[in-house]
Formats: sequence, C-alpha cells, structure tokens
Amino acid sequence: MIMKEKITVGLVGFGKRGKSLLKNILIPMTSMDIEIKGVCDLYEDRARFAADYVRDAIGIEPFCTTDYRDITSMDGLDAVIIMSAWESHIPVALDAMKSGKYVGFEVGGGYSLDDCWKLVHVSEDTGMPCMLFENCCYGRREMMVLNMVKLGIFGDIMHCSGGYHHDLRREISTGEENRHYRLRNYLNRNCENYPTHELGPIAQVLDINKGNRMISLTSSSSRSQGLHDYIIANKGADSPLAGVTFAQGDVVTTTIKCAKGQTIVLTLDTTLPRAYSRGFTVHGTKGMYAEDTDSIFIDGVHNSFDVKWKEQWGNASQYEEEYDHPVWKEYKKQVVGGHEGMDWLVFRAFVESVKAGTQTPIDVYDTAALMCISALSEESIACGSIPVPIPDFTNGRWMERHDSIQSK
Amino acid sequence: MIMKEKITVGLVGFGKRGKSLLKNILIPMTSMDIEIKGVCDLYEDRARFAADYVRDAIGIEPFCTTDYRDITSMDGLDAVIIMSAWESHIPVALDAMKSGKYVGFEVGGGYSLDDCWKLVHVSEDTGMPCMLFENCCYGRREMMVLNMVKLGIFGDIMHCSGGYHHDLRREISTGEENRHYRLRNYLNRNCENYPTHELGPIAQVLDINKGNRMISLTSSSSRSQGLHDYIIANKGADSPLAGVTFAQGDVVTTTIKCAKGQTIVLTLDTTLPRAYSRGFTVHGTKGMYAEDTDSIFIDGVHNSFDVKWKEQWGNASQYEEEYDHPVWKEYKKQVVGGHEGMDWLVFRAFVESVKAGTQTPIDVYDTAALMCISALSEESIACGSIPVPIPDFTNGRWMERHDSIQSK
Repeated sequence: MIMKEKITVGLVGFGKRGKSLLKNILIPMTSMDIEIKGVCDLYEDRARFAADYVRDAIGIEPFCTTDYRDITSMDGLDAVIIMSAWESHIPVALDAMKSGKYVGFEVGGGYSLDDCWKLVHVSEDTGMPCMLFENCCYGRREMMVLNMVKLGIFGDIMHCSGGYHHDLRREISTGEENRHYRLRNYLNRNCENYPTHELGPIAQVLDINKGNRMISLTSSSSRSQGLHDYIIANKGADSPLAGVTFAQGDVVTTTIKCAKGQTIVLTLDTTLPRAYSRGFTVHGTKGMYAEDTDSIFIDGVHNSFDVKWKEQWGNASQYEEEYDHPVWKEYKKQVVGGHEGMDWLVFRAFVESVKAGTQTPIDVYDTAALMCISALSEESIACGSIPVPIPDFTNGRWMERHDSIQSK
Repeated sequence: MIMKEKITVGLVGFGKRGKSLLKNILIPMTSMDIEIKGVCDLYEDRARFAADYVRDAIGIEPFCTTDYRDITSMDGLDAVIIMSAWESHIPVALDAMKSGKYVGFEVGGGYSLDDCWKLVHVSEDTGMPCMLFENCCYGRREMMVLNMVKLGIFGDIMHCSGGYHHDLRREISTGEENRHYRLRNYLNRNCENYPTHELGPIAQVLDINKGNRMISLTSSSSRSQGLHDYIIANKGADSPLAGVTFAQGDVVTTTIKCAKGQTIVLTLDTTLPRAYSRGFTVHGTKGMYAEDTDSIFIDGVHNSFDVKWKEQWGNASQYEEEYDHPVWKEYKKQVVGGHEGMDWLVFRAFVESVKAGTQTPIDVYDTAALMCISALSEESIACGSIPVPIPDFTNGRWMERHDSIQSK
C-alpha cells in the first residue's frame, strides 16, 4: 500500500473536549497532513461553531450536520474521529467501520459487554481498525516508566495501580446547563466509569493482549456524598439538583487480576476535593515508580530503610535523560508549539496509521479490553462486589500477539 | 475501684520485637509503675536472656519459664503481655483471661473467625479486657489526622486506605536461622497477613464498633515472585529456600465496605523492594490527608487545579501546632528519652487501664475486628476473591457504643 500524504477526516462531537482538540490538535494538523471534510454535533450550535471555526482557521468550510450518519456514510473520508458523549462512541464507531472508515474515539468506559464485542466483531468483519485515543499511554512519565519496564529496570512487574483522581464536582453539577454527559451518568450509574486513564498505560506495562490478559475483577463503591454536599454548599438547597440522589459512589475501587499473576488496582475518585493525580504506580521485583511522589526506587540503589526517603520525592526527573521514551525524545526535538504532548502524540499515532493503511497502535482488542472494565465494574458492584470474568476479546490470540504499542 | 500505684506483669515472647520492647519500653516503665514478675519464651535461651536482662537492669530476677501456662496461671499477676509469634497470641490470651488477668498482645492477624470469637467470648465471660497493641493508633500523624477528622476538617469521610509497605525479604528469608514465624506463614498462607497497621488508625477514623462497622471484604493477591528472586540473588541457587514455593503473593489488596457506606483499601506489600510506608490516606467531602506525600488538602484552601501541588508535598507538618492530638501534645512535654513515641503511648494506655481497672482503649471487639481481616482475606483469595462477610463481634451493640479510643 502506498503511504498517503494527506488524509480526509470527519469529526463528531464538539463539547468542551471536542472544541479543545479542534483548536489545539486538529487545526494545527491541517497544515501537515489532514483535511477536515465534515463536522457534526447533535446540537446545531456546536456543529455550527465547529464549521465556522474551521472556515475561519483554514479558509475552507467543511460539511456541517447534526446527524452523525451523514459523516459516517460520507464519501471520500479516510477516518472518523469521535469526541462526543461516552454513550455515542461505540454506535458511531460501528457505523463508521461499516462504511470502510478508520475510527478513532475519545476515552470513556463501555456500557455493556455486548457493545464491546460488537466493536471487535465489526472491526474484524470490515477489516477497519478502531483506536481508543488513550492519551495517557503517551504521557511523558508513563512512557518513560514503560521504557524502563521493557529494559528490565524494575524486574518482573507484580502490581500496578492507577486512577482518575480528579475533582469534577463543578463540571458534573453544571451538567444541565453545559449539556454534559457526565451528569446523567453520575445520576444513574455506579461504576468505574472512567477506567482508561490509568489502565491504558498499565495495560502496556503488563503486555495486555500481547502475552498477558486481564482475567477477572472485583469492584467496590463508597456511598455518594461529595456531589450532594458540593451542590448544597455552592448552589443552595433550592437548586434543582439539591434533592436528587446520585447513584455514583464517591470512590470506586476495582481490583483486576491478570493471567500472568499480576494485580491492578484502579480508583475512580472524582467527587471529593483533592489535587489531580492519575496515581500511576508500577511495582516489580527490582524496584518501583510512584506518580504521587514522582519517585523511583531501585533495589540496591536506594535503601529500603533509608529514613531520608522524602529527599527522593521527585527524583524521577533525574531519570529522564537516560530513560525518556524514544517517542518523547523525538517529540521534544520537533515541538515548538504549546500543545499538550500526549494529546498530540496519540492523534499523530492515529493519523500515521491511517496514512500508512496499517493497524492502529491501540487496536480494537485493546479498546474493548479497556472499555469493558466500566460495564464489569457496574456488574460487580450491583452484585455486592462479586468477582466477574473479563472476556478474552482476542479469542486466544493474546498468547501469540506481539508488538507492544510503543515498542516500534 | 482504687487506682493501683503499680501493676505486676508477666511477659511472653522474646524474639526481636519482644527484646526491643523489653529494653526500650518495659524496663524504663519499671521505674514508674510496673513490676516484671515473670518472663517466658518457648526457646530457653530467649527466656534466659530476658530473665538475665531484667535482673541486670533492675536487680530483681523474674520467674523464668518456657511454658506460657506458668505465666498465665501465676498468682498475683495483674496482666500478661504477649510478644510471641502470631499463632500464639490468641491461645495465650485466652488462658490469661481465664486466670483473671488483663491481656495485651502485639499485632498480627487472626487465623480463623473461630479464634476471634473465642477471644470475644472469653473476655465477655471472664470480664477481663483484651487489647491489641496497635501502636500505629498512637502514631503522631495518625493521631493528628484523627483529631482533624473529629473536628470535621475533612468533612464526612468516604474512603480510607493504608497498608504495610515494608520490604521484609531479608527477615523472611532468614527465618530459619532466626526462628522467625513470618517464614512459615509466607510459605504456607496467602492472605493480608498483617492488616492492623494501618487498619487500626482507619478504624478509629471511621468509628468502627462505635457507630459504624466493617461489613464485607474482597481480597486479591498477585503471584509470588519477590522472595524467590531475592533468595536466588542473595543466597544462591543452592540455598535451601531456593527451590521452595511461597504461598504468599507479593501484593495483596483487600477492599472493605462499612455499614455507613465508606470503603477501605488495605495493601500488604512486603516482598518487593521499596521504601517503608503505611500509605495512610483519609478522604472526605472537605479534604484529605495522604501519608505518601505527607500532605493535606483542604477544599477552599487548596485549589484542585493548582499545578504547583508538588510544592504542597510535606505540608502536613504545618498543621502540627494547631492540630496535633492532645495525647501527643502532652507526650511531647513529658518525653526526654529516645523511645519510639507510639510504642510508648500504646503501652502506657494499657498500663493505665490495668491500674485503673477499666476497659482498655482498644478493646476485645476492636481486637477481634482488626484481626479477623487476615482469616477473611485468606478465605476470599482462596475462593477467587469472592466477597465475604465480616462478623459483628459486638452483636449489634456497635450502633450504641461510643467513646472512641482517643477521645478521652
């Protein structure tokens, strides 16, 4: 297959995230190798905004619609990029693959195993790749730690943890006026609703779908209190949301077991006050990394009983020169703009795959495995934290699959 | 009841921990209000060492035996203090209570629910208190955070975590020559074998047995690799332990649910390289504390999106002057010696209870609730991480019980 010089894309979804990606990632890429042929949002004002924004930025007005099927069925499109509400990712993706288009979509959890299987089946049947834009897989620290893991610095990895520790009380409680999908999800569901930061990077560390797989999980939820208290304190007892009951517990802990004996602990922690963290931790037989202290411990270099361990807080930066991932070393050379590195890198990886006509680095099996955690967590919590099996979306091929996403 | 000026004690168990407590805590207390009447260890050399040590230190040689029943049945003893192997804590405690003596014993997990219930029944039948010496309940930071929780600084507490993150590979792998009980436990069992640091302090934060209780848990274990690799690297492939299989997984994650809707995550992490931590975290609707960064986040004082959060690492020390627990403020005035504050304080609390003839601050219900986690974790892991119920050792009285251990 001949490498394309430029690809044509249709974009779906222009809420806060979609607008930000349009401005910071997609418009800048039009001067490189993408052509924005169509834009869509369920809300006309958002679709219109996007069309106008593209026209003002590059002088060409894209096709504009409120029906995503106009985009997925559009002739001459190479790829559809989906940045809309969580619930729409899979339906839009299925339609786009059926129309022979590459699909990339923003992160979010799945709602049922059935939806995740459909993603796999349609991708297999159509031969079209489908990539979750898990930007944290391209985070600088995540990639450095992955690089160190692959070099054996931490030994055999036995345990990883991560989470989405992000105070979203304001965003959720203004969901009505901002038409934000999180509100309805927090009102109605109780689960690990946003597992893929930091499960994406952990899946790479543990070779998930490439020699290892996740086999089961248990999930437990605290009760819901943070949003209610926030609404009373900030919007008053007369606010429309003051009397409602949120289904979503404040903290959800999910423990995953892997075929090769590792455990993964995921935490969803979005409705209590705190500083942002993804709580990334990788622990092996020779050392560990912990994001919260941004520190690296290497057996023999550091002393387990060193009472001055606090002096090592933040020491991970000392390892950047030697161990920054090749992708980041390259990126740092090229970059002049101010865009977030990991968003740029995850979109570049997708675009390069579409141009080359190759598989995406995060493929449909990875996408399904990461997204199914939400549905399974919901099931486990609903049934009193019972262990539930995690499907093998590769149907056994994980034992022989290779080529970890970032080893190339 | 008249307050005793001095109490008589018999001591059982002089391994590493017993020797250290004898030297640093018990001998210094002989000049205050305790009299060491008897010492015991299963191993004659250790018992002899203790008797000689006491004689050399205070000029009076205590009764010395290798049979703990000689101590538990000894006339004129007020209390028996047990510092022996985990498996012996409950049998010795039961005998001592049956002989009308107060019992205090070192931390460790239980082996069966039956043993924990026996502790409760015998204490109820004999009227003799039984206290787990959970020293971390008296840690300075733990008490400061507890104080802040009781003052409402963190709002309603929704989630806590803690663990025993302590590289014990050397201690465990030299267990044969050092006659250490950990070795046989790591060879034969797979569970959260040491839950009470940090569950003790968390139980106080969450009012366990005093208005709240733990209702169920799930537990998951990684495979065992760290000890094997350590033994091969440090003792060679010919070492007697090189070929054995350790039952104990490297990292065990246990998630506990409480009657009032909180969750607790406990981690056992003792066979991989790392710096020591008890990973204490308390997260409420108004803020949080995290031991690993020794930091406090208070809603409204700190900004969730503050990109300079790293500058707040270690900020907990700024809260000491205002929020140090009264027990610690008092202790700091008195202390001149170099002994570990929390060991001193937990032993003082026990001795004061014996002198006054009152209930111990950590009572038999607390002791049973903390210890049962090991047995239940073992069951959950054995059955594929199923949720298992945690008994209500108070038989319903938790709803009306008050007086949290450190509120007096």
